[in-house]
Amino acid sequence: MRQIKVGIIGLGTIGRAVVKNLLKTRGHIKRSQGVDIVVAKICDKRKSLSKDFKGIPFVSDAWDVVNSDVDVVVELIGGVNPAFRIIKESLKKGKDVVTANKALLAEKGGLLLNLACGKNCGRLRFEASVCGGVPVIRSIYSHLSFAGIKSIIGILNGTTNYILSNMADLGGSFKETLEKAKKLGYAEQNPSLDIDGIDSLHKLSILSYLGFGKSLPLAKVFVEGIRNIDSLDIEYAKELGYVIKLLAVVRLLPGKKLEARVHPAFIPASHPLARVKGSFNAVFVDTERAGEFLFSGLGAGGDATSAAVIADIVSLGRESLQAHIASENKNVNLVGRGSFSFRYYLRFSAVDKPGVLAKISRVLADYGVSIASVTQKQRGGCKFVPIVMLTHNAQEIKLLKARSKIDSLSVIKPPTQVIRIEEI
Amino acid sequence: MRQIKVGIIGLGTIGRAVVKNLLKTRGHIKRSQGVDIVVAKICDKRKSLSKDFKGIPFVSDAWDVVNSDVDVVVELIGGVNPAFRIIKESLKKGKDVVTANKALLAEKGGLLLNLACGKNCGRLRFEASVCGGVPVIRSIYSHLSFAGIKSIIGILNGTTNYILSNMADLGGSFKETLEKAKKLGYAEQNPSLDIDGIDSLHKLSILSYLGFGKSLPLAKVFVEGIRNIDSLDIEYAKELGYVIKLLAVVRLLPGKKLEARVHPAFIPASHPLARVKGSFNAVFVDTERAGEFLFSGLGAGGDATSAAVIADIVSLGRESLQAHIASENKNVNLVGRGSFSFRYYLRFSAVDKPGVLAKISRVLADYGVSIASVTQKQRGGCKFVPIVMLTHNAQEIKLLKARSKIDSLSVIKPPTQVIRIEEI
Repeated sequence: MRQIKVGIIGLGTIGRAVVKNLLKTRGHIKRSQGVDIVVAKICDKRKSLSKDFKGIPFVSDAWDVVNSDVDVVVELIGGVNPAFRIIKESLKKGKDVVTANKALLAEKGGLLLNLACGKNCGRLRFEASVCGGVPVIRSIYSHLSFAGIKSIIGILNGTTNYILSNMADLGGSFKETLEKAKKLGYAEQNPSLDIDGIDSLHKLSILSYLGFGKSLPLAKVFVEGIRNIDSLDIEYAKELGYVIKLLAVVRLLPGKKLEARVHPAFIPASHPLARVKGSFNAVFVDTERAGEFLFSGLGAGGDATSAAVIADIVSLGRESLQAHIASENKNVNLVGRGSFSFRYYLRFSAVDKPGVLAKISRVLADYGVSIASVTQKQRGGCKFVPIVMLTHNAQEIKLLKARSKIDSLSVIKPPTQVIRIEEI
Repeated sequence: MRQIKVGIIGLGTIGRAVVKNLLKTRGHIKRSQGVDIVVAKICDKRKSLSKDFKGIPFVSDAWDVVNSDVDVVVELIGGVNPAFRIIKESLKKGKDVVTANKALLAEKGGLLLNLACGKNCGRLRFEASVCGGVPVIRSIYSHLSFAGIKSIIGILNGTTNYILSNMADLGGSFKETLEKAKKLGYAEQNPSLDIDGIDSLHKLSILSYLGFGKSLPLAKVFVEGIRNIDSLDIEYAKELGYVIKLLAVVRLLPGKKLEARVHPAFIPASHPLARVKGSFNAVFVDTERAGEFLFSGLGAGGDATSAAVIADIVSLGRESLQAHIASENKNVNLVGRGSFSFRYYLRFSAVDKPGVLAKISRVLADYGVSIASVTQKQRGGCKFVPIVMLTHNAQEIKLLKARSKIDSLSVIKPPTQVIRIEEI
């Protein structure tokens, strides 16, 4: 039986789970997959961790793994450096590499995949980088791409989905819920990467590369996080038959143009993505020839993510050729926010006086934004009352200009809340 | 670039779509996967079909494909014979085989997979046999199995799901809806394989083999179709917060015992599987270490299914080793219906007289079945009125005995409707 020697660099939550579960499932893998996976080396800067892994060769310098006789290097330290150099040198030495490092892949994925296609170079696998335990990378690349992918819509970040679900189910403000998420370990102490949509953007870039042969120019993609979602918005969404989710969307437009964006959006409460709650992740793929697909599951956690890492290691034991996803499709281009159009949810804070609605409506009409419905609730005793509107389809540029104009009216307390309605 | 010559046997809906889409995606596959797939031979008994495929070598005898120089034989004729012999001989000749033939795999899958692991034999792939375009086979075998699969629950048959969804959305009896489904092409003229659960059973057997290393003894598995689902049941389900689906379930119990069953079941309306409508299929997998996963998408149709067939062909071009799923796990055993226990929905047709409910309740109590809720609606003018009950968890054997006893009461019009409530 083929034996694969694995070296694991980085013994954080995922690294520890990978070691534990590789040892636990070695027999199952031998029986069911015909490959014997041996944990030949583990590595962490914290030398004291060696005591937790008796009987496995332990080193504290990553290069002692890269320069050893392992067949597969598993990089689980995260961040761009030194992970980039470790992976690059490993591939050059002909070692296969498995990584879960989405930040690195979003920035240097194309470069590393190209390297992995080189003669005598190792192969690269990264199933765990998006949606933890859910096999979306394998599914999109090895399967759905043959049906002609039209769009990929993801709920890719567990922290933000936990916060939004929690606000919807239990009420509570964004701030309170974020604090709770921190206490429960669902949010980091510095949660900016998650809350502000950057983590979702990194993952979206990877999916874009797999689905359309195009990684995203990160600085150019429209990204809006969930800091400004008010519990009021969540209430109104519910009343209107919607749910608010942080979506990461990439879509092929006519003329080989690509639309990519990350932002909170209303989605119909009846849509399967609306049911994706808590720290679950999901990816919804629409195809030309095979209709729509949904994949969902736990997006984080050591054990779930380790299943994806192990799947990659095993696949390297089974396969022989580097898949050529590295041949980037140079013919597709990203479109800017200027070409977006949506139906929108707008929530104005307006002085409770006659004529205010007429003023708002006039501005919207001036910019070609047409109103589908208006709701105005009595909220006794406040100077400002909420007015909620759903619009018909409108160009984003015009809508934003209209909002600026409306926000400058003396009867309005800015900023007016704008949330896109995702037509799925 | 590696070139793979493919021979396609059977030009029905799927076969035609495979040929069309292989030609259409050849360039995409070369660029993105590094393999050149050539349609080298097509075969159908109906010689007249050759005119639809100008320029591709056409034969009318399947053995002219098996004995040719193709690398991959794609079997799309369905049924056990002669498909079994065609696949067996192709594998023995060292040709890889791709099939969508669930009936054959349910009966002879283990045998064929073992053969495919033999020296100098070809490899076998069958992604399209379950859930059409949805990559559940690849996902379960190459990914989720490393997280320790506990149970697999599928909506595996599009015809029955279409009928049940349609009854729920539009009212209408089972018979009317079946006729409509036939007219629209969602049901075959002889729909028994679908309606009676046999098709679901075939697919469940394949998933059981992948998830637990155990194909099912088909004759021993409890299978109940949807013929007896009344529109009343669907109404009541809705009122009670449930949806009725035809589920195919396989679950690992303590002591390496396996529970497998196909039957209509109530599932909570809030569960993601409840959202799987029309001819969509879905598979819900629960794992020890990575939580729950849902996969859904179009389960039928030529284009959707052809994506799975093409994915298999491409994977054969990329991989080199036969995966060893053929080593059947001899340590797991199927449990019988005797060990089932559920919460149940019961609908009695009872004479509208005082004391009837007391009689029913007494029988249930005698058999240890405890009642969670009772609903009795006034339905003026009929001799018999429906009484609906939800029970607490009860042993199936005892429940069925209680039902027999109740059905023998003079105040009851048999048979009493029994539907299991799936705790998902």
